[in-house]
Amino acid sequence: MTREPEQTTRATGAGPAVPAGTAAAPLRGMRIVELSAFVAAPLCGLTLAQLGADVIRVEPIGGQVDRTRWPLAASGTSLYWTGLNKGKRAIEVDLRSAEGRALVTDLITGGGPRGGIVVTNAELPGLAYEDLRAHRPDLVYVRLTGRWDGRTAVDYTVSAETGMPAITGPAGVDGPVNHVLPAWDVAAGLYLAVGLLAAERHRLLTGEGQQVTVALHDVALATVATLGYLADAQLGGRPRAKDGNHVYGTYGRDFPTADGHRVMLVVLTARHWRDLLDLTGLGEAFAAVERALGADFTREGDRYAHRAVIDALLEPWFAARPLAEIEAELSARRLLHAPYRTFEELAADPAALLAANPVLALLDQPGVGPHLASRSPLVMNGERGDARPAPSVGQHTDEVLTEVLGRSPEHVAALREKGVVGRNRPASKED
Amino acid sequence: MTREPEQTTRATGAGPAVPAGTAAAPLRGMRIVELSAFVAAPLCGLTLAQLGADVIRVEPIGGQVDRTRWPLAASGTSLYWTGLNKGKRAIEVDLRSAEGRALVTDLITGGGPRGGIVVTNAELPGLAYEDLRAHRPDLVYVRLTGRWDGRTAVDYTVSAETGMPAITGPAGVDGPVNHVLPAWDVAAGLYLAVGLLAAERHRLLTGEGQQVTVALHDVALATVATLGYLADAQLGGRPRAKDGNHVYGTYGRDFPTADGHRVMLVVLTARHWRDLLDLTGLGEAFAAVERALGADFTREGDRYAHRAVIDALLEPWFAARPLAEIEAELSARRLLHAPYRTFEELAADPAALLAANPVLALLDQPGVGPHLASRSPLVMNGERGDARPAPSVGQHTDEVLTEVLGRSPEHVAALREKGVVGRNRPASKED
Repeated sequence: MTREPEQTTRATGAGPAVPAGTAAAPLRGMRIVELSAFVAAPLCGLTLAQLGADVIRVEPIGGQVDRTRWPLAASGTSLYWTGLNKGKRAIEVDLRSAEGRALVTDLITGGGPRGGIVVTNAELPGLAYEDLRAHRPDLVYVRLTGRWDGRTAVDYTVSAETGMPAITGPAGVDGPVNHVLPAWDVAAGLYLAVGLLAAERHRLLTGEGQQVTVALHDVALATVATLGYLADAQLGGRPRAKDGNHVYGTYGRDFPTADGHRVMLVVLTARHWRDLLDLTGLGEAFAAVERALGADFTREGDRYAHRAVIDALLEPWFAARPLAEIEAELSARRLLHAPYRTFEELAADPAALLAANPVLALLDQPGVGPHLASRSPLVMNGERGDARPAPSVGQHTDEVLTEVLGRSPEHVAALREKGVVGRNRPASKED
Repeated sequence: MTREPEQTTRATGAGPAVPAGTAAAPLRGMRIVELSAFVAAPLCGLTLAQLGADVIRVEPIGGQVDRTRWPLAASGTSLYWTGLNKGKRAIEVDLRSAEGRALVTDLITGGGPRGGIVVTNAELPGLAYEDLRAHRPDLVYVRLTGRWDGRTAVDYTVSAETGMPAITGPAGVDGPVNHVLPAWDVAAGLYLAVGLLAAERHRLLTGEGQQVTVALHDVALATVATLGYLADAQLGGRPRAKDGNHVYGTYGRDFPTADGHRVMLVVLTARHWRDLLDLTGLGEAFAAVERALGADFTREGDRYAHRAVIDALLEPWFAARPLAEIEAELSARRLLHAPYRTFEELAADPAALLAANPVLALLDQPGVGPHLASRSPLVMNGERGDARPAPSVGQHTDEVLTEVLGRSPEHVAALREKGVVGRNRPASKED
């Protein structure tokens, strides 16, 4: 089947004919069905929902397994789940029943030219690419796997085997140090979004759908290869070892201050180096060191190779000053630095944080209350999508079945009676 | 200006009328001009080049500052730079000259309906959004900043101030532990690609261009908010502390093996927990512990809260067995695990690595030789883009100026004579 490009602007289902969107919602009109759990696939859906897409999350009866993941609010509501699923709609369907799967198939394969898109991290029986494609040939099916051959893996196992923990942490620490941020999950979720948009663009231009897959393990392996870490080891570079908070290949490190804080300094360019010397008054001392060592500290490689002597000469300057003075001096010379902060310090003054960073919003989430929530890091013509609450289990079952799938309220009631859809419905306005 | 959607399939410049692309190259026909350095913006270009886009990197005379970043091959060629710039074209232009800027303006604003796209992490004089938009109203201009207000920041400063280093590393370690992976750069590069594709899609549908900005600091702040870390601190959750290699909120940890290796284990679900008990024969012991503590270890929160006692009971099982036996047993029960490996161990057998992972290729890069390089983690209908070499400085200056911009060889020679373009040209075939 080939659909001419101009046809793609004529909606055959619900929704506007030309979903132009506002600047902050360029994907308005796009409908995505998400069958997912954990971080990567939900982050894909969140990213596209924040750009205006209608993301409908399908959950099994009672809600998906990731709804209880830590951290939790005092009520037991997951801050993690609500964070990753903001602004989506949620329906509750028995995916083990043929009737439930048929309902989800209709939802996935409908939606007109801007629908027919699914994001998942699980290949559910009856809802695999080939099953769905039989109903809609131009389907865009986007799937996360653990490994490229379909085997499972998670962020922390993938990280262990691709090398990063071995070079993380202070030199004296025995054994690998894991990264706490599930960075591979975050990257994989964004790759899924890139793949989805590339495939949907291809469909806009040619009418052809396709399957897009991303393996978490591939994301990690590709990244350590792209950054040159893998080739360096293969080609016999000096083995990488734990190096504390030094930035590899240039000069960057954390320094204790006189008042018990720590500040991260990064000296990335020759301009930074010269301004740092000027600030600290260490120009003559470093000139003597450079002569003695045959080094040129305006070169990043030389700064890295001789970082121990640079450390030793800089430490007293930081140790003699309180953080506020150090920050003022470094800022005045546009030198790259930041104080270390804990999440508690960061969140201690929500009003200040919100005022300083429009990427955050105070979102009143049922089960949580007003809390610091993310808006999109993507700013489109100066605008960005608002933070909207995450759905409760089954909150949009009735709305989606009647408004999107065109089922009658009586039919929905019958499905609920049979247990094909869940009993959860939106909280009443009085709640 | 509003361009009707159907017009967008008529190329007004070079390139095919409907650049359908193959499965592995859905973006074939899209032209992106990249003015960038370091990780994020180049990763955006790489990601789109791997999907078939023509990415032309503009560099100042002599090459961009990031061409010498570590790790380096023995020849001095940067493994980092070549990794991040594979499959792009490179031209060398004096951006301080009006004539050079005019050339780059023509390049950015040309390219027909699939051109007019720029990715940058620097706002160069004369090449800002408003300057370029005056020449092409439907320009898609994608820019990385340090902070949302335009101030600078880099991965390691952003990371320090958004909280992650404070909770990274073993409990006994004093002070913050930085992540080694520039995870915020990686995520920012992928957000840039998402924003670019969303904006270009909007242009396909409406004819309108736009400016997309992403701040590195916003990416970090949004992510710690999305994962619930920030709200947890704001709402008075238990302060997060360093917790070694434990996975927060469930059960996961590294274990030393009898033969001196370490293996990461993640017990994510109740099924995993039951199979682990069955494997280790610890069912009765844990049942007694659960009774004593009033806990239920099929619940992830209980596993996390009582991780110390779980550690103590599991450690002897791992300590008594060599890695190979542990891997075989865990694999047989589909339990999530991986051995820790260094980059050196990973790269020690390139043939095995390549055979096991189609995301890697052996790429013969000038200045490096055959080395382990990344292909795209995005698999489109079973295919993925090949790894292609990164360009030398000015390698495509003549090709781009003549074939893309339609300048005569004589005109290019005159520009070179005046120093408007660089003297570097492709290595001859004999090299």
